[in-house]
Amino acid sequence: MTPEASIALIKANLAEVLNPEIIDDVILNQKRPLKVYWGTAPTGKPHCGYFVPMVKVAELLHAGCHVKILIADIHAYLDNMKAPLELVEYRAQYYEFLIKSLLTAIGVDIAKLEFVRGSSYQLEKDYTMDRYKLEGVTRISVAQKAGAEVVKQMDDPCLGGLIYPLMQALDEQYLDVDCQAGGVDQRKIFTFALENLPRIGYKVRAHLMNAMVPGLGAAAKMSSSEPDSKIDLLDTPEDVGKKLKKAHCAPKTLEGNGVVAFVEHVIFRVQAIKTGGKPRFVVERERDGLEALVYDDIAKLKDDFEKDILTPQLLKAALTKALNDLLAPIRTEYLASEAWQKVSEAAYPPEKKVVKEKKVKSLGDPAKKAEAERKKAEAKAAKEAAKAQQGGVEGVKDGVDKLNV
Amino acid sequence: MTPEASIALIKANLAEVLNPEIIDDVILNQKRPLKVYWGTAPTGKPHCGYFVPMVKVAELLHAGCHVKILIADIHAYLDNMKAPLELVEYRAQYYEFLIKSLLTAIGVDIAKLEFVRGSSYQLEKDYTMDRYKLEGVTRISVAQKAGAEVVKQMDDPCLGGLIYPLMQALDEQYLDVDCQAGGVDQRKIFTFALENLPRIGYKVRAHLMNAMVPGLGAAAKMSSSEPDSKIDLLDTPEDVGKKLKKAHCAPKTLEGNGVVAFVEHVIFRVQAIKTGGKPRFVVERERDGLEALVYDDIAKLKDDFEKDILTPQLLKAALTKALNDLLAPIRTEYLASEAWQKVSEAAYPPEKKVVKEKKVKSLGDPAKKAEAERKKAEAKAAKEAAKAQQGGVEGVKDGVDKLNV
Repeated sequence: MTPEASIALIKANLAEVLNPEIIDDVILNQKRPLKVYWGTAPTGKPHCGYFVPMVKVAELLHAGCHVKILIADIHAYLDNMKAPLELVEYRAQYYEFLIKSLLTAIGVDIAKLEFVRGSSYQLEKDYTMDRYKLEGVTRISVAQKAGAEVVKQMDDPCLGGLIYPLMQALDEQYLDVDCQAGGVDQRKIFTFALENLPRIGYKVRAHLMNAMVPGLGAAAKMSSSEPDSKIDLLDTPEDVGKKLKKAHCAPKTLEGNGVVAFVEHVIFRVQAIKTGGKPRFVVERERDGLEALVYDDIAKLKDDFEKDILTPQLLKAALTKALNDLLAPIRTEYLASEAWQKVSEAAYPPEKKVVKEKKVKSLGDPAKKAEAERKKAEAKAAKEAAKAQQGGVEGVKDGVDKLNV
Repeated sequence: MTPEASIALIKANLAEVLNPEIIDDVILNQKRPLKVYWGTAPTGKPHCGYFVPMVKVAELLHAGCHVKILIADIHAYLDNMKAPLELVEYRAQYYEFLIKSLLTAIGVDIAKLEFVRGSSYQLEKDYTMDRYKLEGVTRISVAQKAGAEVVKQMDDPCLGGLIYPLMQALDEQYLDVDCQAGGVDQRKIFTFALENLPRIGYKVRAHLMNAMVPGLGAAAKMSSSEPDSKIDLLDTPEDVGKKLKKAHCAPKTLEGNGVVAFVEHVIFRVQAIKTGGKPRFVVERERDGLEALVYDDIAKLKDDFEKDILTPQLLKAALTKALNDLLAPIRTEYLASEAWQKVSEAAYPPEKKVVKEKKVKSLGDPAKKAEAERKKAEAKAAKEAAKAQQGGVEGVKDGVDKLNV
């Protein structure tokens, strides 16, 4: 790939690029690979929405970049301090397995892909000193505004939520990158970094921003908290088909249409990588006795969809096939890797089923009644304690749900 | 000293004690020295107001406590990032020299006195992880309220000001103490520690609070930012006399009277330590041909002052003698110690005199006028830049001005 083609691919398919001249300078003048950082907190199992940022990461690798994926394990740990650090480490390993497999399935070389744990430097002296310095010059209102779109909003948030923009700025310095990538919802965090790193003596970085893409869920937004709708990256082809059937996809409507968006932002761009820029998306119509629709241009596909030539049913069937083709090697790799399976089990242990206690009918027995009251009170106290603990922790960088729809 | 006498002295002369049972338990049940922490940021040269917390520290040492003095060097550095870290280290050394000398002058054994630099643990991994945890469970409003009396208040403070209460709580754990001492203005910071350390698995400490004492300055409050009024701990006897003459001391008025307060909280208590509980304060009246007034009870002294038997002039003369007696060994030690003098010079280098530029009279010469305008603009810009830099940094734990007035 020529330097110009590389630069074009780095900047392609984005909502916005800040300081693009930094990218040009590294590739054209310094003649070295661009170093880019993208961060993710290893929390829940990534679902199909993860493909959206991953396709950008794939494009960056394809364009010859050195991509550093920050596995934000401290963030994940703080998100829910009930989960011990060992569990977070298993989840970090699960994310590594999955991301490597996913990028390989997209068809890019992962030789210049690097994983870095947040804990490997976010507890070090230099970083901590710089955090003290940034805290010393950052007004509360500025930190709050910077995190407004990424940190869960509440009337009186915790300090934790305020420091994430500061950390994400310092990460650019400590990961030694030229550029940070993220969703466009990170814009204020990125401009915070631009404005504040120079105040403590560090240079400004470029920023790449993915558009926010509607999800594949039954509702407008797919999230890992809606277990029925999310398509796991290791789901069977049958499950993928079933879940896609339920996906929200109003006929003739492009806005908020997660199915069309997935075809545009994942399938077409993956095909562009695989075919050297010549995507081809086939919609079979055998059942209707018609010829297949073949798209090499997303604009034409959207046009047909708006005219209902391409119906939701037809598009979903075609996407099911395309998505299953994309997922097949990931699933195969998982089933062949004992190590990955072990990590998966340790990272996401099956939830213990809560056996409901049978109600103790008192029948006038005061001892039994007292026992039942005691148990009830204990259960209530335990529940409240758990709630209080959980309620206090919030504002963690939300790599999956926010960045990747 | 009996355990009971020791406990009594620890709790004596204070505005308030929180969780006194912790002190009793350590001394009566665990039968070991109470470990107490008191913190100070090595910024400006400590003045006579420093005697107020130091007398409490002296009482603690006299009562057999193991006293850890936190030299909060990171706080001092962040207070004004224009001062390099080396300067802060010299100031830390100056504070050590001075505190040791001062406590020795008060007459206590400093064998169980320990100095700890904040930087020796506030940049370490465990501490940083705990800071992340506390930040994750502390609401902004709670942190703000906790620091309200100690952190400089402004409409939109910096994050730095918010984290000091958290750090001061963690300090109790990392300094491994049973108790923290400070001014009563630290009350909210202390209750923050009480309420929040258990949330991250650490135990509650006892807290000793000095009353806020009016200063010896010409105004109601003596501060190191009023150079004329402060009495340096190394001032000559003549300077002490001159400065005390200017001290605010309204006749017959006890409220806000820094001179009476100093006699009560410093001179009487130091004498109590030196004489085993039998203070004796002599007011000569030779000049008036009267017998000296001799006080062994502060209540009697206050009574005489209110009746104007003891006039401000008489009291000031007597305090000048008593204070100079107290300062004499400190000054002697300083003059004999080349090491201390060197540290003092490095810690507080003489300010460069700003030579005022003569006004360029333009006399119609446009080149000269332009030059003058340019210089003026440059000077203004430099001043604003300095102000902006300084304005951004605030909220540093203010060991001298707040704690020790």
